[in-house]
Amino acid sequence: MTKIGTGVSPLTLLRTELARRGLDGFVVPRSDEHQGEYVPPSAQRLAWLTGFTGSAGAAVVLKDRAAFFTDGRYTLQASAEVDGRAFELLHLIDAPPTGWIESHLPKGAKLGYDPWLHTPDGVTRLKESCERAGGELVAVADNPLDAVWRDRPAPPTAPITPHTNEFAGQTAQEKRMQIADAIDKDHLDAAILTAPDSIAWLLNVRGDDVPYTPLPLSFAVIHADGRVSWFVDSRKLTPGLAAHLGNGVEVAEPDAFGPALDGLADQRVRLDFGSAPAWVRDRLVAAKAKVTRGSDPCQLPKACKNPVELAGTRNAHRRDGVALAGFLAWLAETAPKGGLGEIAAADKLEWFRAKGAHFRGLSFPTIAGAGPNGAIVHYRASPASERKIEPGQLFLLDSGAQYEDGTTDVTRTIAIGAAGAEERRRFTLVLKGHIALALARFPTGTTGSQLDALARHALWNEGLDYDHGTGHGVGSFLGVHEGPQRISKVGNTQPLLPGMIVSDEPGYYKTGAYGIRIENLVAVKEDGKAEGSDKPMLGFETLTLAPIDLALVERDLLTTTERDWLNAYHARVRKEIGPLVDAATAKWLEQATRSI
Amino acid sequence: MTKIGTGVSPLTLLRTELARRGLDGFVVPRSDEHQGEYVPPSAQRLAWLTGFTGSAGAAVVLKDRAAFFTDGRYTLQASAEVDGRAFELLHLIDAPPTGWIESHLPKGAKLGYDPWLHTPDGVTRLKESCERAGGELVAVADNPLDAVWRDRPAPPTAPITPHTNEFAGQTAQEKRMQIADAIDKDHLDAAILTAPDSIAWLLNVRGDDVPYTPLPLSFAVIHADGRVSWFVDSRKLTPGLAAHLGNGVEVAEPDAFGPALDGLADQRVRLDFGSAPAWVRDRLVAAKAKVTRGSDPCQLPKACKNPVELAGTRNAHRRDGVALAGFLAWLAETAPKGGLGEIAAADKLEWFRAKGAHFRGLSFPTIAGAGPNGAIVHYRASPASERKIEPGQLFLLDSGAQYEDGTTDVTRTIAIGAAGAEERRRFTLVLKGHIALALARFPTGTTGSQLDALARHALWNEGLDYDHGTGHGVGSFLGVHEGPQRISKVGNTQPLLPGMIVSDEPGYYKTGAYGIRIENLVAVKEDGKAEGSDKPMLGFETLTLAPIDLALVERDLLTTTERDWLNAYHARVRKEIGPLVDAATAKWLEQATRSI
Repeated sequence: MTKIGTGVSPLTLLRTELARRGLDGFVVPRSDEHQGEYVPPSAQRLAWLTGFTGSAGAAVVLKDRAAFFTDGRYTLQASAEVDGRAFELLHLIDAPPTGWIESHLPKGAKLGYDPWLHTPDGVTRLKESCERAGGELVAVADNPLDAVWRDRPAPPTAPITPHTNEFAGQTAQEKRMQIADAIDKDHLDAAILTAPDSIAWLLNVRGDDVPYTPLPLSFAVIHADGRVSWFVDSRKLTPGLAAHLGNGVEVAEPDAFGPALDGLADQRVRLDFGSAPAWVRDRLVAAKAKVTRGSDPCQLPKACKNPVELAGTRNAHRRDGVALAGFLAWLAETAPKGGLGEIAAADKLEWFRAKGAHFRGLSFPTIAGAGPNGAIVHYRASPASERKIEPGQLFLLDSGAQYEDGTTDVTRTIAIGAAGAEERRRFTLVLKGHIALALARFPTGTTGSQLDALARHALWNEGLDYDHGTGHGVGSFLGVHEGPQRISKVGNTQPLLPGMIVSDEPGYYKTGAYGIRIENLVAVKEDGKAEGSDKPMLGFETLTLAPIDLALVERDLLTTTERDWLNAYHARVRKEIGPLVDAATAKWLEQATRSI
Repeated sequence: MTKIGTGVSPLTLLRTELARRGLDGFVVPRSDEHQGEYVPPSAQRLAWLTGFTGSAGAAVVLKDRAAFFTDGRYTLQASAEVDGRAFELLHLIDAPPTGWIESHLPKGAKLGYDPWLHTPDGVTRLKESCERAGGELVAVADNPLDAVWRDRPAPPTAPITPHTNEFAGQTAQEKRMQIADAIDKDHLDAAILTAPDSIAWLLNVRGDDVPYTPLPLSFAVIHADGRVSWFVDSRKLTPGLAAHLGNGVEVAEPDAFGPALDGLADQRVRLDFGSAPAWVRDRLVAAKAKVTRGSDPCQLPKACKNPVELAGTRNAHRRDGVALAGFLAWLAETAPKGGLGEIAAADKLEWFRAKGAHFRGLSFPTIAGAGPNGAIVHYRASPASERKIEPGQLFLLDSGAQYEDGTTDVTRTIAIGAAGAEERRRFTLVLKGHIALALARFPTGTTGSQLDALARHALWNEGLDYDHGTGHGVGSFLGVHEGPQRISKVGNTQPLLPGMIVSDEPGYYKTGAYGIRIENLVAVKEDGKAEGSDKPMLGFETLTLAPIDLALVERDLLTTTERDWLNAYHARVRKEIGPLVDAATAKWLEQATRSI
């Protein structure tokens, strides 16, 4: 990452600034004010300070020592990017910043933090750590890092456009009234929205302020009567947007957000303490608003897609399937010759996708890992790291796109040439897990955490596992990762509800050798009634339409039920995608989706 | 339950007493000071007040209305036992006391509670409800209910005896040092123990103060140097106990507990806010002790049985299996003739068990439910409710015993005469779930919550489920229900650890028709290494040894793996139990455990 020209490291610059302000240390999270997955260049403070470009991390800087934290996905990347002499490199989960602060913050020391970049819950944890160390956590009004980051980019001002009813399926007016009703039922006067995807969903707008997720960064307040005050840089507004927003939405510049919070004195205001900036809580408390902790009220309705959104995602997945079929047919022809690079392969897939209607870009950086690179769960090929895709290797390809009618995310693992027996067996165990989840029926009220083991069961039986979640929520032309649902070992209390889209992506990774992951998106659907109950049983509808490499399937390891699922899935792919591709691809598809 | 002779109901007596004290209401939990499953007659306040004799419930009494709460297991029983004109009958989980208080406590009203009978966490929840209602929660020094409960029994004073090393496998001295080390590592000076089973485990003593669990009610403080102050009624002490306890244990009367807490001024003291009385917290805070929230330090080591305890439980299960085989052979002979009552059957089983060495009583009231009674999950036969066990019915029998070397808990469902196709299919689905859990292998770190769905998967596929947990922890000649582990839909963060004993008990219940449950106890064991890891994979060793009724098994619904498990299990039962029973029973066993 950028080092400024003076030869003085960002760490030294920051320490000098901290000393000037009488601070003994500072916490630098990866997050911006919105706690989203992608942050604009103007907010990439952790990257500026440490060089780390991954999506999960934090640093704590003290006078004479500093620590950098990231999770298992990024351990290798961090040791390549972060200077291990300047920063102790630690595991974000196993040895988190809170524990490190507790052990290393000197008694009486003042540890600073920027209250815009931490949630109230996060501040509580930091505060406890400081107190246990005998130190003090201090909110700073201006981020000291920004004061010394001289070439800091300007904040993004990408244009904001309407997300029309053709794709949204529900007008913003209806959504505002629905959320207002919920707020009113909870005896509240207003809720603060700080998650840009919630605001984009609520107002039916999209933007381009961060990569991969089509959202404008902004803040909003929704009142119990359905009015919304929207705080957004006016340079982003486009002609026609005012008409699209209608009368119930007042637009103001971001610097009006604070004064608007002051105006909520004596009102009962809901704030999500797990995702909002602590700054907002502090300002509301100072203004004598009655702050109630509660989840972002848009999160759950946004997660449950309406019929128009579900129809849209089916269409988007059909186009995505056409692109994948074209790519996979090309790959089957090209890769065995050798010499194809990971980046070239990813670019080719993007080229196929870009031909589809409503395509607006990728939904995340493509993970294209050949051989050992496939074992790096969140691998991103660079000219320095990329490998050639060679015969005898597995090639793991995890990719997705943003279409105006839906967001896709799919992983396929492809054998280049002949695959070994171990790879075939383990691929088939992963496939068994994928199918167990795809076929699961479960009662209303079941959470993703409860289903997680179904996807791991076959691997566990052979002493194998994978160190990531099994499924994440997916937005509708919004974030490729969204909550509140999740299929994971980590406890989650949100029941799966009809219309939710989640990924089904078990895997297996052999470090230094190969990686396997099979990922489809699925939508939660009603699936008959539970006996003796009015409640529906639930199940999944598979959305993704792309062949699963039969060269990696050990037929005899599959039960009849599993084989039936695979054959029916492939028959559906052939039927839905076959008519939409050229003759050569159709021929390849015919063979790739044959019954076994 | 007892109504006092004056003709005035307990509810009226309590209301008069509340009025006298200036209280507008009172909360009556089912718990005593120890939050255990069984409470002595002297603490059965909820039963005295409402008539309810189940093991989970609460009442809230206001001036002009009152509500009684119990969970799904006891809904039917509550409507039979509790006067619906005096108490609104509500669901403890779906419509809990906190919500009811919020809706019904008048503004400005004072709601009393006995701080001995609620945990700090429980008090926090009650307090929030009162505040939301605009009322006030008030701790009372003497329970007003006790003031009007004129024929209240005396507290129990059953003799306390040593639990010798032959069964305990670790001396109390060693255990005290182990817990003291853990306290010291956490930088604490002491921990308060209020759970009688923790104290019984720690000091290697057993008692008889409550039914079914061989423990003395008492309190204790363990200090960081391993000394224990034990607060217990001296009338319970038996000759030789002082020598067994040794020098590190000071014994004092229960009324010395409060002053001992006062003596912890300035010390760092751990207290379990989820199980200790709020009274203890309040007293410690008043004494200016530094109270730290933390789980009972004996709970986890107690849950992980040592090799002597595991050997003991295997022996106990062998004797239990002999009793079950004898009973089941007798039942096979007797029941088809008709006319056998549920109570007579349960008594006969107890008679078989009582012949075994080290038998000390049942571990819980036997659940013996014929036909529709089997569908009542926590059914307890009474002369009024019991049915005859008739041909054509399923008979569900859930029972267990306390042996000095181990605690047992087993459920078998038996077809009396020929069983219908529906019953056979559903029994087989339950069996598939039982086997899936029994055969599960899983990585170190896996919780019971993660495994729960494995036991439900086959039922879910057919739109069926059961409304109880899949597995609970079991003690070693202690509680038949113990934590912290649990296999359940409810999230639980405690990983399963080697040596833990849990039940594996999926079921299916058709209200008004029949109930099915198949329960074995299993012990967590190491089961090979996870690939590429030093961590062991874990699995289960089945402890229970009793035939599963083959008349209810649909062979063709089982996979080969499942059939292999069943045949191997039956072969083991035959091999281990066969040589220990009489010839007639052995002959029956031979047939009951045949290979299918």
